[in-house]
Amino acid sequence: MKKYVFGVDIGGTTVKLGLFDTDGNVLDKWEIPTRTENDGSQILPDIAASIQEKMKQIDNDAVIGVGVGAPGPVDAEGMVHRAVNLGWGTFSIKDTLEDLLNMPVMAGNDANVAALGEMWMGGGRGYKDLVVVTLGTGVGGGIIINGKMLTGAIGAGGEIGHIHLDDNETEVCGCGNKGCLEQYASATGITRLANRMLSSCSDASMLRDGEVSAKAVFDAVKAGDALAIKIAEQFGEYLGKGLSCVAGVVNPEAFVIGGGVSKAGEILMDYIKPHYEKNVFHGSRDAKFVLATLGNDAGIYGSAKLILDKEN
Amino acid sequence: MKKYVFGVDIGGTTVKLGLFDTDGNVLDKWEIPTRTENDGSQILPDIAASIQEKMKQIDNDAVIGVGVGAPGPVDAEGMVHRAVNLGWGTFSIKDTLEDLLNMPVMAGNDANVAALGEMWMGGGRGYKDLVVVTLGTGVGGGIIINGKMLTGAIGAGGEIGHIHLDDNETEVCGCGNKGCLEQYASATGITRLANRMLSSCSDASMLRDGEVSAKAVFDAVKAGDALAIKIAEQFGEYLGKGLSCVAGVVNPEAFVIGGGVSKAGEILMDYIKPHYEKNVFHGSRDAKFVLATLGNDAGIYGSAKLILDKEN
Repeated sequence: MKKYVFGVDIGGTTVKLGLFDTDGNVLDKWEIPTRTENDGSQILPDIAASIQEKMKQIDNDAVIGVGVGAPGPVDAEGMVHRAVNLGWGTFSIKDTLEDLLNMPVMAGNDANVAALGEMWMGGGRGYKDLVVVTLGTGVGGGIIINGKMLTGAIGAGGEIGHIHLDDNETEVCGCGNKGCLEQYASATGITRLANRMLSSCSDASMLRDGEVSAKAVFDAVKAGDALAIKIAEQFGEYLGKGLSCVAGVVNPEAFVIGGGVSKAGEILMDYIKPHYEKNVFHGSRDAKFVLATLGNDAGIYGSAKLILDKEN
Repeated sequence: MKKYVFGVDIGGTTVKLGLFDTDGNVLDKWEIPTRTENDGSQILPDIAASIQEKMKQIDNDAVIGVGVGAPGPVDAEGMVHRAVNLGWGTFSIKDTLEDLLNMPVMAGNDANVAALGEMWMGGGRGYKDLVVVTLGTGVGGGIIINGKMLTGAIGAGGEIGHIHLDDNETEVCGCGNKGCLEQYASATGITRLANRMLSSCSDASMLRDGEVSAKAVFDAVKAGDALAIKIAEQFGEYLGKGLSCVAGVVNPEAFVIGGGVSKAGEILMDYIKPHYEKNVFHGSRDAKFVLATLGNDAGIYGSAKLILDKEN
């Protein structure tokens, strides 16, 4: 008999949901709004109602369970330890949703779950030890060891955006520290590096003509803009060094680069890899660098895989 | 029926062996020389002969198997990828020793295996996500995630001594890179920091009176020597920063500090923790710092645990 799982990815404004078969084919996907009012108390009931609605269309005995990714630290028992964007404190996502749905639930941190998705059906297919790096507004990370998510003590495993890299940083990161990887390698970080570079010299650059963004920087790099190339060099030095630290810890087979910044494509690797290779321990020097392929769907794929692994 | 396992820790000059019951009690332990001549081809046959000799004293049906730690990268299938100290190239320790002994064998990197030992019966008891840091001639590391060794793609997981920390370093690390954690936090590294400090100023110090060593530095720290305290501060800054990177990746419950340098005791933590806490992501700020307790026996305990986990 064909079996199904639901994958759920809770974001700050919308919840993505997907219905998958056990081979990783997405049969249906849809979104509902994330209602963060009243400390987010309606979020899980809304998800349960949406899943129950969808289950009217399929054989309920064929549903294995529900996987959930949430934007905060979620430990191996499915307990979330504060998710500020959702208004959530500390409670068990797993227990709450299992009570609402009366079927097995597994939960994880959204970035960790997305990494599982990229391993299962995305850029990381074929690897079982990998690091997924998401270069978006921030820098997120998800680490897969021997095919399983590295969760950590309270679910903060893979929070590589806050690895400390620069003692001389004067601005404060969102986490409260100074000199975090995220301050240089996120979309916001690249924009910051670009603005610093533009104001510190008077060299001509395409970047002086429009809005400065990570996309503008890499578009200019592709057009051969010398100043943009200098900015990309800085970005690559920070990220290459940061990932060399990560490799020193987990010795991955591959890095999978995703998030909005990764839309720049393979050219990113030209800036990251030389600094990675210079600083990394030789046992990890041959790690592959590949692009993520699932985009915003990585979370629903990964949460589907999470419950599938648990119940198989 | 009482069951037994053998734990074997292969070093560059001696092989340590132990006979354990399944509760982690060591019933017997002994050493044999490591014969590294002829590309180390006699090492495993010597170990097999020594175990067979010991088995004459016990019920052979009660022996579950043999765990082995080796000084080189060893992957999850028990394949070693060059162990220069032993003269070894790439081959399967597991298959070779299983053929010699006709019983189950598991193998791992010595530092990773030692970490498993500290979790099982040492300073890390009660934790399942932990990082064991060995401050000896070099800086070794072993990482335990959810009670299992983090091996990595080729067995270089936990090689935290070669995390890059200082762009301004001019001397080359044993690994060929510059600015590795090991260059500042190993016994050799502390001696190096001390010699640099002593030659860069003329301040009075107990350290000017005898041989400079990591032990001498921490003895002087305990005696209130101002210059030694400055050296300990440097050591703590590098190690605290390095461990904050590790925590950003794995979010451990605890760090277990071992190796010769750890004989200085709890005072080490006073120098490491402030820098760790300053630089670490808040999700890992509460990680515990404890001392290793098994000393040179961590390897035999851990290799015993490795085969026990496999066969249970």
